[in-house]
Amino acid sequence: MSRLTLALDVMGGDIGPRITIPASLKALESDPALSLLLFGDSQQIQSELDLLLKNSPSNFRERLEIHHCSRVIANDQGLTSALRHSKGTSMRLAIEAVQHGDAQGCVSAGNTGALMGLSKVILQPLKGILRPALVALLPTMDGHHSVMLDLGANLECTAENLYQFALMGAIFAENQLNLVFPRVALLNIGVEEIKGHKSIRDASNMLSNDSTINYVGFIEGNLLLNGKADVIVSDGFAGNVALKTLEGAAKNVIGLLKGKSHNHLLKPLFGGLMKILFKDSYQRLKTINPDQYNGASLIGLTAVVVKSHGSANVEAFSNAIKDAAFQVRQRIPQKILDGLNKY
Amino acid sequence: MSRLTLALDVMGGDIGPRITIPASLKALESDPALSLLLFGDSQQIQSELDLLLKNSPSNFRERLEIHHCSRVIANDQGLTSALRHSKGTSMRLAIEAVQHGDAQGCVSAGNTGALMGLSKVILQPLKGILRPALVALLPTMDGHHSVMLDLGANLECTAENLYQFALMGAIFAENQLNLVFPRVALLNIGVEEIKGHKSIRDASNMLSNDSTINYVGFIEGNLLLNGKADVIVSDGFAGNVALKTLEGAAKNVIGLLKGKSHNHLLKPLFGGLMKILFKDSYQRLKTINPDQYNGASLIGLTAVVVKSHGSANVEAFSNAIKDAAFQVRQRIPQKILDGLNKY
Repeated sequence: MSRLTLALDVMGGDIGPRITIPASLKALESDPALSLLLFGDSQQIQSELDLLLKNSPSNFRERLEIHHCSRVIANDQGLTSALRHSKGTSMRLAIEAVQHGDAQGCVSAGNTGALMGLSKVILQPLKGILRPALVALLPTMDGHHSVMLDLGANLECTAENLYQFALMGAIFAENQLNLVFPRVALLNIGVEEIKGHKSIRDASNMLSNDSTINYVGFIEGNLLLNGKADVIVSDGFAGNVALKTLEGAAKNVIGLLKGKSHNHLLKPLFGGLMKILFKDSYQRLKTINPDQYNGASLIGLTAVVVKSHGSANVEAFSNAIKDAAFQVRQRIPQKILDGLNKY
Repeated sequence: MSRLTLALDVMGGDIGPRITIPASLKALESDPALSLLLFGDSQQIQSELDLLLKNSPSNFRERLEIHHCSRVIANDQGLTSALRHSKGTSMRLAIEAVQHGDAQGCVSAGNTGALMGLSKVILQPLKGILRPALVALLPTMDGHHSVMLDLGANLECTAENLYQFALMGAIFAENQLNLVFPRVALLNIGVEEIKGHKSIRDASNMLSNDSTINYVGFIEGNLLLNGKADVIVSDGFAGNVALKTLEGAAKNVIGLLKGKSHNHLLKPLFGGLMKILFKDSYQRLKTINPDQYNGASLIGLTAVVVKSHGSANVEAFSNAIKDAAFQVRQRIPQKILDGLNKY
């Protein structure tokens, strides 16, 4: 694998260095060609590292670079305020490291709106892309994945926006899911041609007329998990509602099955039996669980930016790092640019 | 209970008389003060009745009135075409029976768009209501319900529309769920004040300033099932996506647990154990299953109109009839009108 450096905002999310630093070491362990720039409170970072580096390979220290900054963007900070007061924050400095060429991609678990806003300003959208989008993988019931976008970056979308999301999503799916000619669908409230916003119907026409995209029509919310499409395209509002609704449903079901709200002597037995009989299904259910998510990606920018879940655990944050490394090596931004010019 | 007559479109949906007629008899059985007008193909209706009435109380025949019509509105028919060619269809005649005072409410499992369109034209919105909405009960994880609207009748909504949905939803919840001062929330993609469409933020301000409504703020998709609000208000597009996403997730999970795609000798044992240990939870999961739904209601019209699921079974369609009877007896339209004048 080619050498690469990623810039991490280690302060973002509900989590901070106690999660992001062990996750960084985990990522270094699994990817020997990876180096990391850590942006955040150096004291907190150092105390985590002191604890963990004792038992780590000696070259880890050389592959880590601490960049101290005392300021962070809060999770609940409004976009305007976050952007205005972003100077010197861990998130902004991590993005600027990519801008300056010190790193090839960036990962943060912080404020999504600010991450998108700053990335757009500092890294810029790819030439021709009207709106970068937030994209994530959705597990399907048959054990595969679909790509879904936009997940909240763009609330109001024109037909042209949706069309570009479809294009970006198809290229993302080709690379992330290793698919040829992935099936693209538009999220709608019915499958008939007459349903939904005009922007969706117009995007449907544009996609139908584009033979380079494998457009399969509308998809409704009830089939999101059923693998009917490899790429599911939506405006950011409906996409965010759908994704969070799925996450909530999965979390509730897992809670039910774990018997969180129940007491019964036989419950542990049940749990064990469940795991044996439904091993695959249980794993699949768990993948819908946001705890297991490895984050969403900002797509349509000149560089790779990955947004980890704010509530990520060590494994999830290290998956977000791996994801960013994968996208850099796959040259996703360049491929989207090529795709735009081709279509 | 007071005597009342409902008009049924017995041809609508994927189902037709083989479901709607047994469902009608079931409803008559559980509600001795109910009479039904059956609109549809008299031959099909009669052959179902001949079969079923043998074992039914003798007064059933007097409480049923067959109104023959040979035309139906197709499920996939576009709204414009459906309205233009609606004359003499089972759906239109059932609605007209309410208009003429022959029935006090109407039930159909047919084309939702056409049902809403015809109801608006024939029965008219209540004075002051800008847009009638589609409302349904959502089961919550704690075994209760929330009211959710709009579920697809109004794709683009102004702040004023959302405000009226909140008002109608609150009155619906008071009556259907027997609640005092129900908690009302707006579906959004974040809980911060700065999130979401301008219409949602403006509606939030309007609701905050209205002390007659118990407005509790924004709710995200992941908490829809958690009973955080009694009334969840949304535009019809996002509401429909959220509801269908929930339905799909529930159906998939139930499929998983039933082991549809699995083979194992121990599965029946597991199923039995599951039912014993998780009786409540399993029942709750099943209530999210669309097969168990008793339909949605059109709200904001001068009369009661209930839309059953197109794929309803006998029990579900008879529940839709019961629902309509309940709403007529509760005088929901009148209460909404009173509420509008009060606020």
